[in-house]
Amino acid sequence: MEALAHGGDLTGYARRFPGKPLLDFSASLNPLGMPALVRAALHQAVGECERYPDPLCRELSEQLAARWRLSPEQIFCGNGAAEIFDRLAAVLRPGAALLTAPSFSEYERALRSNGCDCRFHVLRSGEDFAVTGRILSELTGEIEAVLLCSPNNPTGQVIGSELFDRIAARCAEIGAWLVVDECFSGFLADDGARSMRRWLDRYERLVVVRAFTKLYALAGVRLGWCMTQDTSLIRALRAAGQPWNVSYLAQKAGTAALLCGGFVRETVCVSARERAFLAEGLQRCGLWVCPGQANFVLFRSEEHRLSERLLPHGILLRDCAAFRGLGPGWYRAAVRKHMENEQLLNTLWEVLHGKDDYGAGHML
Amino acid sequence: MEALAHGGDLTGYARRFPGKPLLDFSASLNPLGMPALVRAALHQAVGECERYPDPLCRELSEQLAARWRLSPEQIFCGNGAAEIFDRLAAVLRPGAALLTAPSFSEYERALRSNGCDCRFHVLRSGEDFAVTGRILSELTGEIEAVLLCSPNNPTGQVIGSELFDRIAARCAEIGAWLVVDECFSGFLADDGARSMRRWLDRYERLVVVRAFTKLYALAGVRLGWCMTQDTSLIRALRAAGQPWNVSYLAQKAGTAALLCGGFVRETVCVSARERAFLAEGLQRCGLWVCPGQANFVLFRSEEHRLSERLLPHGILLRDCAAFRGLGPGWYRAAVRKHMENEQLLNTLWEVLHGKDDYGAGHML
Repeated sequence: MEALAHGGDLTGYARRFPGKPLLDFSASLNPLGMPALVRAALHQAVGECERYPDPLCRELSEQLAARWRLSPEQIFCGNGAAEIFDRLAAVLRPGAALLTAPSFSEYERALRSNGCDCRFHVLRSGEDFAVTGRILSELTGEIEAVLLCSPNNPTGQVIGSELFDRIAARCAEIGAWLVVDECFSGFLADDGARSMRRWLDRYERLVVVRAFTKLYALAGVRLGWCMTQDTSLIRALRAAGQPWNVSYLAQKAGTAALLCGGFVRETVCVSARERAFLAEGLQRCGLWVCPGQANFVLFRSEEHRLSERLLPHGILLRDCAAFRGLGPGWYRAAVRKHMENEQLLNTLWEVLHGKDDYGAGHML
Repeated sequence: MEALAHGGDLTGYARRFPGKPLLDFSASLNPLGMPALVRAALHQAVGECERYPDPLCRELSEQLAARWRLSPEQIFCGNGAAEIFDRLAAVLRPGAALLTAPSFSEYERALRSNGCDCRFHVLRSGEDFAVTGRILSELTGEIEAVLLCSPNNPTGQVIGSELFDRIAARCAEIGAWLVVDECFSGFLADDGARSMRRWLDRYERLVVVRAFTKLYALAGVRLGWCMTQDTSLIRALRAAGQPWNVSYLAQKAGTAALLCGGFVRETVCVSARERAFLAEGLQRCGLWVCPGQANFVLFRSEEHRLSERLLPHGILLRDCAAFRGLGPGWYRAAVRKHMENEQLLNTLWEVLHGKDDYGAGHML
């Protein structure tokens, strides 16, 4: 299987195990799948998608603006959040940037492509990979951009409000842009209150990036967006690439998704319950589990070939060995539906302990 | 109506004329619309698009490779052809590039975003905007990339094979990349034979860009691709941006489109017939029409507010005043279905000559 940089390689799996059913724990999508309303909107959009998409994403931006109490001119939509990072890197072109390790590797790739000197604030397993006040001392004058992810991928750690304010204030002092990736924030119970959105009015150089991909299981459709106080940054982001970056289908899916408040509340509930179940089960398997939030769990095993060994069982797990700041033995599992999570735990027990008695020994 | 850089602004029209029916002649899409097989594939893909798209577009690249007798490693797929130009500009980063004027403005935008000095070979209306041997003298040593469009947007002029060979040979001499945009080439009767594909084996630094957007009326889905001899360029294009640039929906639409040979043959036939009808009708309206091919027609009028004056009639025409090398009074009309083309001609006559007798005076 050709090693790709990220999880979710269903094509590679299907080529290696033709026709074999698969449970994909390597991509962290909503366990409830796509809301029915969004799927219906997509079917309708298929009937209309001969036309070019609106380059300004006007309808979607206006609805996002209303939802987040901003003006549409403060919002830029992208072909997935990943494109936003590419455009931010191209527009901001920081000489040096501070990232955390481990975190989502696309920040580094996007920044380096634009000639950036990437520096890393190394999170410590002994601190459960939490961002702490230690980071402040690394926010020195030459740093022109800081990339944070909260909840962090792959740790699930959330940056607290008080610490965030200190980081943002320090960034303002040194004139650095602060980009916060909240792609997994929608899975948190108090997302609305906790989102860094509320600091946008205070900090000029703060950008909050969010995605529809994970929360609404729209990974194959591609839709992300960002918000900032600075409307000139939004204009620069628009000009930094082709005008038709967000497909007509994605724009229609996004506007439908914003109507799915009940679905999000159910998601939050299921994710929290199943995350706890999965984390506890992993611990019972003898694995160290990183405390965190959001719809995935980071854990460590002495077995360094765990992902490979789960494949013949029809389970795709995210091997985190290549994450900067992690290494062999680190894995990320998506939180899926209850029965599926049980299946992962049973299979893990069997693979790690050589017998199929996880259920008998620990679940009853 | 906020002026966008390109045609097809249906959102802007709908906001200005709510509920009013529209014939969009400003975006040059296939008059037959999307093939039924592609639409069916899209509906099926909607049921599967929770998953991430394949970052390598393996299935689609393999089918394109088989169709064009290349290896899949020589093909890169993008979020519309427009994204290909962005990535090519970012990867090749030419210090100076030669473009023609008029032509598609996205080449210039993409190149300038990457610090390129854009120079322009000005095509002459007296030469029907054809590319001629004159261009060879402008291919001097400092030119690192040449961008050509054939059939050219907005003129419809095709570069002949012999001249192309001379241009390509000259580019090879000076070590310049030669990028040919063939997004409208699928509308030509002899596309397979005429495509610059056949020069790929001879010229190392030749890139041919093509799109599904226009030929299969997939503008809202976004799908383009390019081919080159140089597999290291393909790898660089992949690394130059996010891995999930082509949506799952677009990949599935593309693989279905490649099965639509009969649809393409019908398209070629209808486009040629209707282009001739439209061009002749425009000339009868007293307009100068640029000879050319593909599914759009460039023409000139003494009336500089023609697009604006057609709007209340429910007709969207591409005003080409902003095209470098053109100016006020230049317009591009898509070739649409027969009845629609008739409606455009009737309305033009009425607007230009003040009475509704185009049909009576000229058609019978």
